[in-house]
Amino acid sequence: MEIISRTRIVDLLKREDFGAMVNVKGWVRTRRGSKKVNFIALNDGSTINNVQLVVDLGEFDEELLKKITTGACISVNGVLTESMGKGQNAEIQVKEIEVLGVCDSSFPLQKKGHSLEFLREIAHLRPRTNTFGAVFRIRHNMAYAIHKYFHDRGFFYFHTPLITGSDAEGAGEMFQVTTLDLNNVPKDENGKINYKEDFFGKEANLTVSGQLEGELAATALGAIYTFGPTFRAENSNTPRHLAEFWMIEPEVAFNDNNDNMNLAEDFIKYCVQWALDNCMDDLKFLNEHFDKGLIERLQGVVKVEFKRATYTEGIKVLEEAVAKGHKFEFPVYWGADLASEHERFLVEEHYKRPVIMTDYPKEIKAFYMKQNEDGKTVRGMDVLFPKIGEIIGGSEREVDYDTLMQRVEENHIPLKDMWWYLDTRKYGSCPHSGFGLGFERLLLFVTGMSNIRDVIPFPRTPNNADF
Amino acid sequence: MEIISRTRIVDLLKREDFGAMVNVKGWVRTRRGSKKVNFIALNDGSTINNVQLVVDLGEFDEELLKKITTGACISVNGVLTESMGKGQNAEIQVKEIEVLGVCDSSFPLQKKGHSLEFLREIAHLRPRTNTFGAVFRIRHNMAYAIHKYFHDRGFFYFHTPLITGSDAEGAGEMFQVTTLDLNNVPKDENGKINYKEDFFGKEANLTVSGQLEGELAATALGAIYTFGPTFRAENSNTPRHLAEFWMIEPEVAFNDNNDNMNLAEDFIKYCVQWALDNCMDDLKFLNEHFDKGLIERLQGVVKVEFKRATYTEGIKVLEEAVAKGHKFEFPVYWGADLASEHERFLVEEHYKRPVIMTDYPKEIKAFYMKQNEDGKTVRGMDVLFPKIGEIIGGSEREVDYDTLMQRVEENHIPLKDMWWYLDTRKYGSCPHSGFGLGFERLLLFVTGMSNIRDVIPFPRTPNNADF
Repeated sequence: MEIISRTRIVDLLKREDFGAMVNVKGWVRTRRGSKKVNFIALNDGSTINNVQLVVDLGEFDEELLKKITTGACISVNGVLTESMGKGQNAEIQVKEIEVLGVCDSSFPLQKKGHSLEFLREIAHLRPRTNTFGAVFRIRHNMAYAIHKYFHDRGFFYFHTPLITGSDAEGAGEMFQVTTLDLNNVPKDENGKINYKEDFFGKEANLTVSGQLEGELAATALGAIYTFGPTFRAENSNTPRHLAEFWMIEPEVAFNDNNDNMNLAEDFIKYCVQWALDNCMDDLKFLNEHFDKGLIERLQGVVKVEFKRATYTEGIKVLEEAVAKGHKFEFPVYWGADLASEHERFLVEEHYKRPVIMTDYPKEIKAFYMKQNEDGKTVRGMDVLFPKIGEIIGGSEREVDYDTLMQRVEENHIPLKDMWWYLDTRKYGSCPHSGFGLGFERLLLFVTGMSNIRDVIPFPRTPNNADF
Repeated sequence: MEIISRTRIVDLLKREDFGAMVNVKGWVRTRRGSKKVNFIALNDGSTINNVQLVVDLGEFDEELLKKITTGACISVNGVLTESMGKGQNAEIQVKEIEVLGVCDSSFPLQKKGHSLEFLREIAHLRPRTNTFGAVFRIRHNMAYAIHKYFHDRGFFYFHTPLITGSDAEGAGEMFQVTTLDLNNVPKDENGKINYKEDFFGKEANLTVSGQLEGELAATALGAIYTFGPTFRAENSNTPRHLAEFWMIEPEVAFNDNNDNMNLAEDFIKYCVQWALDNCMDDLKFLNEHFDKGLIERLQGVVKVEFKRATYTEGIKVLEEAVAKGHKFEFPVYWGADLASEHERFLVEEHYKRPVIMTDYPKEIKAFYMKQNEDGKTVRGMDVLFPKIGEIIGGSEREVDYDTLMQRVEENHIPLKDMWWYLDTRKYGSCPHSGFGLGFERLLLFVTGMSNIRDVIPFPRTPNNADF
C-alpha cells in the first residue's frame, strides 16, 4: 500500500481540496450497500462524525472484504470527494485498503442501542460508542477549560497529597492505605495495631479534600487551585455517588466571600461557554439522544445573572411554598440542611435561574467557615444549578486564630492533626476564600447524562473496582 | 483605609504610570532602614520579586509599626514611584497601612539560609520561601504546558482509575486500599481474608501506572494522555524515589516507535522551552542559588537534535569505554539493564546530548512491548537526559494477540486480571505507541533541584505522610 501521511477524520471532514489522495485510519462503525458498491462509516475517535468510505467491490479481493466487519480496524487510501448525500461534505473513494485488526462476531458492540447499564459492564470498550466518545471528549474539554481559566488569571495549579496521615476534616468515611499483611496484622504489647510497621509509620488514608493544604499554598502563592482525585468510602449505591472522583478547589488570598461568589459564577460560566464553543457536535448528539433540553439549559446558564440569596431568604421562600400547599419529602425550617428537592425548587420553580445561596447556619457547615457578626451564620456559599442541585460549595475562611480554635474544639477535631493548618492563622494570617467543584457534577450538567458512573471512564463504587 | 482595588505584585512591577495610587497586599519578607525611613520588601506569591515599600516612619503610629515584622501580612495604599535604586523600576511610597495578620518571633522563617532538610520539616510553610515559591510556580507552568501541548495537538486527557482491582503490570510493591477493620480482619471458612466484606468486594490497590487503561482509550479516541498520581510502596529512602508521584502517559493509535520518539522529543523540548519563556525570573534565582549550569543546560536541550541509538550500539560504546579504562560500578554486557551511571556516561561524556535509546533486550523490558523480527529485542525507547538519566520510557505496543499471550504467560501475569486488556487485541487491534514521563523527574531537570522531595509540595516517603 502506498504510504500517505494519515489525516485525522476531524480534520479531513473540513477539507475541500477534492481530488487529493488521502489516508485515514480508524474503526468500522457500519457497512452497508449493494452488491456493487459498499459504504463504510469509519470513526477514529477524533470526532463523533464518521467519514463515509465508498468501496467499489469489484476492485477488491473478496477475502479482504470479508474482514471488513463492524469493529475492525482499517487503513484506507483514497480520493477525497465531494459528498452528494446530506450530512458531511466530504467522502472518500477508496483505492487501497489494509486491514490492521480484524473483529469477529463476538465483539459486544455489534449492534446499536445497548443500555447504559450493559455498557458499564464493558467499560473497557464503551469509549468506542458514540455516547461515550462524546462524553469523554467533553470531559477532556472541561478539564482543559479549567486549567486554562485559572492559568490565564494567574492561579497556580497545586498538587495536594492523596495519601494523608491526618483526618482533619473528618468528612465521612475514608479508605485506609496500608502495606501491612492483613493475614497477620502486627500488634504491640497492648494488643493494638503496631502502625510503626506500616509504610508511613502511622495510620494513613486517602484524602477527602485538598482544601486545607490548598489554604497553605494560597497563603504563600496568592491564588492556587487543586484538580485531583478525591475519595469517599461511603457505602452509597446511587446515581450521584462515586468512591473515587475528581475535584477542583481554588483558594485565593485576600478574596472575601463576595469575590468568591464572583469567581465561582465567572468560572462556571466560562466552562459551560467553552463546551458550547468547542464541543457542539458532541452536545448535539447528547441533546438528541439523552436530554432534549441540554443545549438550551447550557445556553441559559451562561446568559443569566445568578440569583444571590441568603439561606434565611431561601428558607422563607420554601416555607411560603409549603404554606401554599407544595409538598416536600424533607421538612423545611431555619436550621435544616437543604435537600436536593429544596435546592431544585428554588432554582427551577422559584428563581428560575442558578442561585448562589449564602450565610448558612454554622451548625450545618464546616468548622473553617468565617463566622458572621450575628454569631449564628457563616460566610458559606453554595451554587445551586438546575437538574443538579449543589454544584459548588465554598466559603470565606475563618482567619482569627481564637475563633477557629473554638470551632475546632466544638467539632472535636483532633488538634494534633491540625497544628500545621493552625500555623497559617498564627503567622501572617490573611483573609482568604475558596470553593470546591465536583468535576463529575459539572460533567453531569454539561453532558446531560443522569448517572455519575457514565461521566468517568472507570467508576469505583461499592463492590466495583474492575478494569 | 481607602478602598483601592488590589494590584498583584507581578503586575505592579510592570507598571509605569508613576504617581498612581495603588494597593498591594502580601507578606513582609524583610524590613530595614534608618530611624526616619524604612524599606519593606513585600511578596504576594505572584512572582519571586518583592516590591519595595518606602515608609516615612514619622507618618505612622508606633504601635502599628511594631506589628510589621517578618512574616506579617499587610495591606498597603501608596503612590507608585519610579525606583532610584537598581533592580526594580517601581516602588511604593506608602500612605496607609493595615496589618491583616501579625507574625511573632516564633515564625520559623525569620532568617534566611535554612537548609532544605529543615524546610522539609515545615513543608506547610516552605512555599513562602523564594526557593519553593520558584519551584511551585515552575511546577504549575510545567503542568500547564503539558495540558496545552496535548490539547493543541488533538489529544484527549483521560482519567485512568487510581484504585484498581488488578495488579496486571506487577510493577513492584503496591499499597492496599481497604475499609476492613484491621483490628478484626474478617476471615472465611478456610481462614483466608474475606474480601467480600471489603468495600470493593475484593482486594484493591493503588495504581502503579495508567498505561493499560490508557491503551483502551487510545484504541477508541485515537490520541490520549493521562496525568495523575501514581503510587509505589517501595521502601526506598533515596533522593529519587517517592511513594506518591505524578505521571504523564500519552498513548497514540497508529503511531509506530519512530512516531513515538518524535513525539517524546518534541514534547519535552516544548516543556523546557515553556519554562525558558515563562519562568525566567524563577529560573534565574535557582540558577544562582542551586545550580549554576541550569539555564545553559535547559537552553542546550531545546537546541540540539537528540541522538538516537540502539541499546546494542550503546553497549558497544560502554564496552569500548571500559576497554579504555573507564570504571563503572555495575558490569556492562549485552543483556544488562543500564544503570544511571551508564546512561549519564552516554549522555554527558560520549554523545554530549540527550539520547533516545531503542531496541532493548526483551528480558529487561515489560511484556507489552512489541517484539522485533530478531526475536531478541523489543521496540522500547528511553529518553536519557543529562544529570537525570532516564526521563521518559516508552514503546510501541505488541498488537498481535498470540505474541502478547505468549509474553503474558512467560511473565506469569494472572490472566483473569487481563481479559479486558487482551480484548483490545481481539477487537480491531491497531498499532499504537506511548510513553511515560515522571512529572517530578521533569521538574528535577527544569528546576535544577537535586532531591525529588523538593519538587512536590508534600512528599510521601517511608515513615512520612505528614501534612
